[in-house]
Amino acid sequence: MRTQVVIIGSGPSGLLLGQLLANSGIDNVILERVDRDYVLGRVRAGVLEQGMVDLLDEAGAGARMHAEGLPHEGISLAFDNRLHRIDLAQLTGGKRVTVYGQTEVTHDLMDKREAAGLATIYDAKNVTPHGFDTDTPFVTYDKDGATHRIDCDFIAGCDGFHGVCRKSAPERAIKTYERAYPFGWLGILAEVPPADHELIYANHPRGFALCSMRSTHRSRYYVQCPLDDHVEDWSDERFWDELRRRLPPEVAARVVTGPSFEKSIAPLRSFVAEPMRFGRLFLVGDAAHIVPPTGAKGLNLAASDVRYLYWGLREFYQDRSQAGIDAYSARALSRVWKAVRFSWWMTTMLHRFPDTDDFGQRIQEAELDYLVHSQAASASLAENYVGLPY
Amino acid sequence: MRTQVVIIGSGPSGLLLGQLLANSGIDNVILERVDRDYVLGRVRAGVLEQGMVDLLDEAGAGARMHAEGLPHEGISLAFDNRLHRIDLAQLTGGKRVTVYGQTEVTHDLMDKREAAGLATIYDAKNVTPHGFDTDTPFVTYDKDGATHRIDCDFIAGCDGFHGVCRKSAPERAIKTYERAYPFGWLGILAEVPPADHELIYANHPRGFALCSMRSTHRSRYYVQCPLDDHVEDWSDERFWDELRRRLPPEVAARVVTGPSFEKSIAPLRSFVAEPMRFGRLFLVGDAAHIVPPTGAKGLNLAASDVRYLYWGLREFYQDRSQAGIDAYSARALSRVWKAVRFSWWMTTMLHRFPDTDDFGQRIQEAELDYLVHSQAASASLAENYVGLPY
Repeated sequence: MRTQVVIIGSGPSGLLLGQLLANSGIDNVILERVDRDYVLGRVRAGVLEQGMVDLLDEAGAGARMHAEGLPHEGISLAFDNRLHRIDLAQLTGGKRVTVYGQTEVTHDLMDKREAAGLATIYDAKNVTPHGFDTDTPFVTYDKDGATHRIDCDFIAGCDGFHGVCRKSAPERAIKTYERAYPFGWLGILAEVPPADHELIYANHPRGFALCSMRSTHRSRYYVQCPLDDHVEDWSDERFWDELRRRLPPEVAARVVTGPSFEKSIAPLRSFVAEPMRFGRLFLVGDAAHIVPPTGAKGLNLAASDVRYLYWGLREFYQDRSQAGIDAYSARALSRVWKAVRFSWWMTTMLHRFPDTDDFGQRIQEAELDYLVHSQAASASLAENYVGLPY
Repeated sequence: MRTQVVIIGSGPSGLLLGQLLANSGIDNVILERVDRDYVLGRVRAGVLEQGMVDLLDEAGAGARMHAEGLPHEGISLAFDNRLHRIDLAQLTGGKRVTVYGQTEVTHDLMDKREAAGLATIYDAKNVTPHGFDTDTPFVTYDKDGATHRIDCDFIAGCDGFHGVCRKSAPERAIKTYERAYPFGWLGILAEVPPADHELIYANHPRGFALCSMRSTHRSRYYVQCPLDDHVEDWSDERFWDELRRRLPPEVAARVVTGPSFEKSIAPLRSFVAEPMRFGRLFLVGDAAHIVPPTGAKGLNLAASDVRYLYWGLREFYQDRSQAGIDAYSARALSRVWKAVRFSWWMTTMLHRFPDTDDFGQRIQEAELDYLVHSQAASASLAENYVGLPY
């Protein structure tokens, strides 16, 4: 079997890349380790930058997002028992974000791909990229008791942090940067209307809390928790109590409780691998970088990688120019590091760190106080939150 | 002897407060531990915010500053071998800073005080504030073999970090916040024209460097150095070599060298004591807080304390209202913490920290890169540098 681009991983970045390439007449095959329902069962982020919304439109997969997604023109920061709104639209000349679950994005892209008859191979085991340091790379995988091979021009590694692509790069050619945070996020999903029509990021002496949502009737809430906490120790009741204690009274009073249908603890981590290209293998999204969810940048960064790689491959096939793929890693990483910095900064400013001294705590409070009262500082947060230019 | 306000310390904050009070008809006496020449021998900061310039004008001590001081409408950040100018005036609606040495400010205020015949007692030993938790405080000191006493309404502690005033506050009533930085600044003064007409803050793999000045013919340069370095190990030649290695080539080529006439190593520290009022004793400037010199906030913060205390005392004597002195500590500290945050942030962003991991280093580089390319982030730096509103 032969195609132009083998895409490893059928998450939103692999699907989005595949659709954009197909729309430009570039053949591609997606290989996915698990099955379709497993992919759709993943609960993930849900705040889309305008740039990602535009890219989904360009892919022709934006219709349901526009119908059901919630455009947000602001967020609020809560601290010292008060709520401070950051008017994203006013501070950025009209830009906004769209709340639409990653699962829904994946769903829309899968439907689009199926309708177009594009090839996705699920349950592909032992997927392995080969020969990407030559002009004739190929990918092997096992399925139905046999080993298969797909020859191609390029391999796109959209297979996430634990995927095989980054691990296939020669060790001496890759440099990684990492920061672990000394806490996790305990998150729940519940079929209740959200406490506010916009997101609320709360810094509280008991720890960070986030009021988010998937829709007008489905809420997503988080509280910072110790890394060694167990989900079993967090009854719904305990969760709701803790959440409300960390919010200003006016917000706590608006929290509608109900049974959770998803509850999990996730660690927070920053991670970057450089470069993002090894010959004819490209790393995309989580395969190359992880950001803590504070700031909602993970999915959006994956989309910006997709955009740069799509531009590069289109240039290669349409204009016979290598310039775009040669520039891919540097272009993507320049934007990645800015988002990594922003996510680190938001995380640092909004969480309580177990080892912070009194001075550090007061600096955090002074920063929040300055931030919400300074037009310039608020604008800096806002331009990062809605997404820096490409 | 009796006066209305005893001011302990004849540095710029004590002198400025004394002048403003005297201009409003409020009697005051300044007590100074050392002699006049010793005070004038101290080499200190030299970048004045507009608010401090205005206050010196209000005190009637601004004439020479306007004649000889250098108004600066920008600063530059240097990193990655390039110079990036921050246009302070353009980013803040026309605000600027004035380069004029602290020694000159002190000199002008001393001259003014002497001309007005106001009392300053030099060489006052064992200065001690008493009874400031009552309505009848007094200060004692030793001079010429005798102990003297001055009765007063209020005591202003303008006696610096090592002074007696903060140490006189009851230990259980005071809370301190502190951060030491793992490096020092090796600074020199030389009678040579500065490398640039504005200040240059340089982040370099070998460490921070600062190109500053006192006048068009006197340069003040600094390089970050280990805390255990000795001045004796730094010949002028070694200093100039190290400085130039840390600057972009275009700037290094413009450095004019010459013999230094002052050379010293200073540690960097953040320190805040709360509250800044204990009954009828007020702490002002360095007596209550220290900032690292990155950001040039130390002297300016002292001046903003003076402004709040001057307002409070004037209200007390002219309007018979305690509101201003009751609000002094909270008002002063609100501005102090913002400047402490800014100074900490500038220090953190511009220095190389011996224990920073690769991730932290890249975050610093991403922050600088973002900062100089974002109007909002540059404006945030600028508004802090020229001084936040009172």
